Amino acid sequence: MTTVREIRLKSRPSGLPTHDNFELASVELPAPGPGEVQVKNLWMTVDPYMRGRMNDVKSYAPPFQLGKVMDGGAVGQVTASNDPSLKPGDLVQSGFGWREGFNAPAGAVQKLNPGALPPQAFLGAAGMPGLTAYAGLLKIAALKDGDVVFVSGAAGAVGAMVCQIAKAKGHTVIGSAGGAEKVAWLKSVGVDRVIDYKAESDLNAALAAAAPDGIDVYFDNVGGAHLEAALNNARMFARFAICGMISIYNATRPEPGPSNLAQLIGRNIRMEGFIVSHHFSMMPQYIADLTKWVAEGKISWKETVFEGIETAPDAFIGLFKGENLGKMLVKLG
Amino acid sequence: MTTVREIRLKSRPSGLPTHDNFELASVELPAPGPGEVQVKNLWMTVDPYMRGRMNDVKSYAPPFQLGKVMDGGAVGQVTASNDPSLKPGDLVQSGFGWREGFNAPAGAVQKLNPGALPPQAFLGAAGMPGLTAYAGLLKIAALKDGDVVFVSGAAGAVGAMVCQIAKAKGHTVIGSAGGAEKVAWLKSVGVDRVIDYKAESDLNAALAAAAPDGIDVYFDNVGGAHLEAALNNARMFARFAICGMISIYNATRPEPGPSNLAQLIGRNIRMEGFIVSHHFSMMPQYIADLTKWVAEGKISWKETVFEGIETAPDAFIGLFKGENLGKMLVKLG
Repeated sequence: MTTVREIRLKSRPSGLPTHDNFELASVELPAPGPGEVQVKNLWMTVDPYMRGRMNDVKSYAPPFQLGKVMDGGAVGQVTASNDPSLKPGDLVQSGFGWREGFNAPAGAVQKLNPGALPPQAFLGAAGMPGLTAYAGLLKIAALKDGDVVFVSGAAGAVGAMVCQIAKAKGHTVIGSAGGAEKVAWLKSVGVDRVIDYKAESDLNAALAAAAPDGIDVYFDNVGGAHLEAALNNARMFARFAICGMISIYNATRPEPGPSNLAQLIGRNIRMEGFIVSHHFSMMPQYIADLTKWVAEGKISWKETVFEGIETAPDAFIGLFKGENLGKMLVKLG
Repeated sequence: MTTVREIRLKSRPSGLPTHDNFELASVELPAPGPGEVQVKNLWMTVDPYMRGRMNDVKSYAPPFQLGKVMDGGAVGQVTASNDPSLKPGDLVQSGFGWREGFNAPAGAVQKLNPGALPPQAFLGAAGMPGLTAYAGLLKIAALKDGDVVFVSGAAGAVGAMVCQIAKAKGHTVIGSAGGAEKVAWLKSVGVDRVIDYKAESDLNAALAAAAPDGIDVYFDNVGGAHLEAALNNARMFARFAICGMISIYNATRPEPGPSNLAQLIGRNIRMEGFIVSHHFSMMPQYIADLTKWVAEGKISWKETVFEGIETAPDAFIGLFKGENLGKMLVKLG
């Protein structure tokens, strides 16, 4: 028997989640059964989309269940195996996050061969957030030569990859992020112009100054005022990849949308929402491109790391306060 | 010398236009100069997009000028010609509306061969409104077999054609219009379910009842609450053709957009604005299809006709009060 700790959903939040919505519990893991492996998690991810799963509403990801352990991406190491496909010491990726360890059928985890990358990169730059950036830019926004790209949440796990992929492909990139540290980092990786939205009273004017000829592509992680500014500064036939709207995830009543949606018409703008899971087939191509860009020094990334399963709620809540530079992670091992 | 009357923009409206914004004036037309024709207008069109041209803002159509005659689509008859390409009696289409007659270079008007159609159809079903419906459905919304189609402003010049083109192609069509007469007409032409939005307190629930399995395509002529309801009832990978937002054209301050734009993400919705002038190349294909559908009895249309140039402001203002069933026209000849 091994004792592991896990985070359960204690109550559903109204607005920004608090510690009261989470519960830390201990469970005993028996030895793995036939065909099962036992895994000690090394890293888990917290992501903004999980906020929607805390509500009891049907959406693209099923809601977390009250009183039950939460779940999400994790990277761990096999500690015991009853299946020939995996052996102790193997690294695996799984959806069994928010816990220190677990037993699962061997087929429910994916063996990870990290190569030159640190294993937690597969929860960020080399994982879903990276693929989200890649698919959103290349497929949804149909990025083409000469496009001027605007990215909100530019210093986040997805946004930072959008900025760098667009730069690697030779585009002019304008990012928006909150605070001097994020702005400085974005400039250090080559983002052409960075808007500190917390320091701007008029986002629309700030974007007009940063993109005097307008924008062709907007990668939206934020919604709200950022989306409104992007609409006002869009060029003809602009494409908006709508990836997230973190500005409204904690709204306790409906937040009005932008008042300028009629810009879609005169400017022939295409606005398309997407979920990365529909684009998993692009992963091999993405990893090939990423490997090349990393080797060429064109792409790097930051992590904000909390340590210990008991800090996972803090890490998660911190996402909505903009506490992360790059990928927000919880180190468990 | 011939005396003709014309409508000039006297002042720019705030909110819904009033008679005070228009001025009826008489001008003397000399004989046409070399290479010119003189045309007596028979019909002129009023369209919702003209409201934007009454404001002094840059948009896809240039603003009307204060004190100057307005313009827009018209069909007329040549009364005198100094150019070999046109002779008296020829029907022509032009952009010289809002006036009873005009002189213009022969190359500035298009000779019209109406065939079996009445000439004013080229301002409606066989003209820009019809092509708007066709291009919006087939190209922007990428209509495909089995799609359930929702249309707002369904009894208007564009909406009525959207409904019937979608029906001609075998789709389930849900229309929204205001008032019993429009609802009855839409049902008479085969629209499967019609929402009388003026009689509904909850448009979202009304659409959910009319489309229990959701909608795949939304053709938006209205914006506002209709767009919000469409987002809430959209199926995965739905496509929205954003053609017009008549609900906000007369807003005197910014109207908030729908509060549920985040639905774009989870449902992978594509929302695309468009202007018909970018799709003129589809006109020959459209006219071929239209001719076939009319011959098969699959498409018909209604007109709401005001008579006399002095009634043009009434016809135009009536668009925003929903006074038209089908195409709003002013008969001049």
